[in-house]
Amino acid sequence: MDRYDIAIIGSGPAGLSAAINAVIRNKKVILFGSDNLSNKLLKAPKINNYLGIYDVSGKELKEKFLEHLKYMNIEIKNEKVNSVYSMGDYFALSLNQKMYEATSIIIASGVEFSKPLNGEDELLGKGVGYCATCDAPLYKGKTVAIVGYTKEAEEEANYVSELAGKLYYIPMYKDKVSLKEVIEVVEDKPISILGKDKVSGLQMSKGEINTDAVFIIKDSVSPGKLVPGLLMNGEHIAVDIDMKTNIEGCFAAGDCAGRPYQYIKSAGQGQIAALSAVSYIDKIKLNKKII
Amino acid sequence: MDRYDIAIIGSGPAGLSAAINAVIRNKKVILFGSDNLSNKLLKAPKINNYLGIYDVSGKELKEKFLEHLKYMNIEIKNEKVNSVYSMGDYFALSLNQKMYEATSIIIASGVEFSKPLNGEDELLGKGVGYCATCDAPLYKGKTVAIVGYTKEAEEEANYVSELAGKLYYIPMYKDKVSLKEVIEVVEDKPISILGKDKVSGLQMSKGEINTDAVFIIKDSVSPGKLVPGLLMNGEHIAVDIDMKTNIEGCFAAGDCAGRPYQYIKSAGQGQIAALSAVSYIDKIKLNKKII
Ligand SMILES: Cc1cc2nc3c(=O)[nH]c(=O)nc-3n(C[C@H](O)[C@H](O)[C@H](O)COP(=O)(O)OP(=O)(O)OC[C@H]3O[C@@H](n4cnc5c(N)ncnc54)[C@H](O)[C@@H]3O)c2cc1C
Ligand SMILES: Cc1cc2nc3c(=O)[nH]c(=O)nc-3n(C[C@H](O)[C@H](O)[C@H](O)COP(=O)(O)OP(=O)(O)OC[C@H]3O[C@@H](n4cnc5c(N)ncnc54)[C@H](O)[C@@H]3O)c2cc1C
Repeated sequence: MDRYDIAIIGSGPAGLSAAINAVIRNKKVILFGSDNLSNKLLKAPKINNYLGIYDVSGKELKEKFLEHLKYMNIEIKNEKVNSVYSMGDYFALSLNQKMYEATSIIIASGVEFSKPLNGEDELLGKGVGYCATCDAPLYKGKTVAIVGYTKEAEEEANYVSELAGKLYYIPMYKDKVSLKEVIEVVEDKPISILGKDKVSGLQMSKGEINTDAVFIIKDSVSPGKLVPGLLMNGEHIAVDIDMKTNIEGCFAAGDCAGRPYQYIKSAGQGQIAALSAVSYIDKIKLNKKII
Repeated sequence: MDRYDIAIIGSGPAGLSAAINAVIRNKKVILFGSDNLSNKLLKAPKINNYLGIYDVSGKELKEKFLEHLKYMNIEIKNEKVNSVYSMGDYFALSLNQKMYEATSIIIASGVEFSKPLNGEDELLGKGVGYCATCDAPLYKGKTVAIVGYTKEAEEEANYVSELAGKLYYIPMYKDKVSLKEVIEVVEDKPISILGKDKVSGLQMSKGEINTDAVFIIKDSVSPGKLVPGLLMNGEHIAVDIDMKTNIEGCFAAGDCAGRPYQYIKSAGQGQIAALSAVSYIDKIKLNKKII
């Protein structure tokens, strides 16, 4: 398998700035995220606090970022990283059906404001999951509920419906839902996930759904769940001023690394994380040569 | 005397980003620096690592920054801050002939790469100084040497020549020197400052100059000298991830706060410093109301 120097998780300003800076330093980079860069970028009505660029909407700033990426020949892998495992001298990244390897990683996954559901943390891995397509084969013929926080969750639902016996879909956004007919859309708020050692149901505000599995599909999962062993500081990744985390070779930048939640702060930290990763890689390569 | 909420020292990307963000938060800001923003900005041949702006020279980036400042109605005080004193609940900033007061300060003064001369630290205040115009009256009729690291030092030299009995000028840059005729330009490298309790001369590589005072005029002085009591980490200001220093109400950002030396990292830290200063000020104002 090809091993990348740096895998970057997230295509908001933090991840993009990291990618640009790592590529300028001649590193082999893979950037995971979404073609529209970041939902938070799209939503901003007017931006004046990004030095050098003023009086723009989030959409306009997004276009400037995309042009910059194009100029640097940087592509985004429009895929979600499900989990990252530290393997000693490299990291293994697991995506829907694929695995990738990288010597170092930069987490730039933003923050997700929604709180976990009651029972979510307790039943994680016991019927609760964040990647429906990954785990769907386990629920062949069974009942599955998907709680979708973004429209992209619909794709996962359509796929899972081919395997599951029964699929409920709970949209947590306002856009119109377009799903296969076999899927039952439930327009109600989930309160808690039920079950002792494994999921038995989903308590909604107006009733209960019997189900074997609950998948919660958000723009980003909590970094502590993404990278097992990662030290958190409350809801943020604990970092030092060089954007190092507690795991060697793993760096973080942007909203996920703490407040304030802002674009140019995220871009600045993305740059620092990239340059820290570059010197980490160079040190490793040098050591290998010496040995 | 008018008291500002935030005084920002330095007009590179760190100081500018701090100013923009503080003004957006409705704070009363004063920004000290230079009309050409930053010599380091002017010198960059090609910049590609500032997310959203690519394939520009330092001069072009400077123009974008200036436009942004203009759009926000932010002006630069083209003056050098000589020293800052913490007065408890505010800071006193001393400039050539003036004093300013501010509730909080952000140091964004960049880094100066040149090492101190031999004897410079020992004889500081005993004939060695960093502001010739401030101390010139002390050397009326006496001999003075000015070591100028930037062309702007020539202005100071011209002014001092009106008071000093004899003035030597040692240019440390390549640009053509244009000075009053009475000033003696010495094209040689200074090695060490001579004297026991006070300056007696300046040892050059090809000879010795007898002088009563040596002024060293750089773009920036070491922050530890600018703000007495400021905790340093080697040659950088010690900061935490919120850009706080060891002095309450004093923040730092950009090159002066550590590596890497880069534009967008500096701008990002300037933003963080501004928002930290804003919450410091709001807390103080709230406390005053409660008492
Ligand atoms: C309405 C609104 C207005 C705002 N206005 C301003 C403003 O005027 N000025 C300002 O400075 N800030 C503003 N902000 C804040 C700003 O949007 C955020 O601070 C900034 O987007 C954070 O950047 P980031 O790169 O850390 O994360 P994000 O922009 O959140 O990007 C993270 C990206 O990572 C992706 N991702 C997450 N997990 C994974 C994974 N496992 N695999 C693959 N990809 C993943 C996400 O899909 C997303 O694309 C605003 C925010 C909102 C919501
Ligand atoms: C030739 C060259 C090329 C470069 N190319 C790049 C590049 O491509 N990409 C990149 O990211 N970085 C580049 N850099 C680095 C970049 O220039 C610096 O990291 C950046 O300018 C630091 O910003 P700053 O705001 O911290 O400080 P500075 O830009 O150094 O600004 C500090 C300002 O504060 C003023 N000041 C200092 N003390 C005082 C005082 N007491 N009172 C009033 N004002 C004061 C100074 O006069 C100056 O104007 C380059 C640097 C050089 C020299």
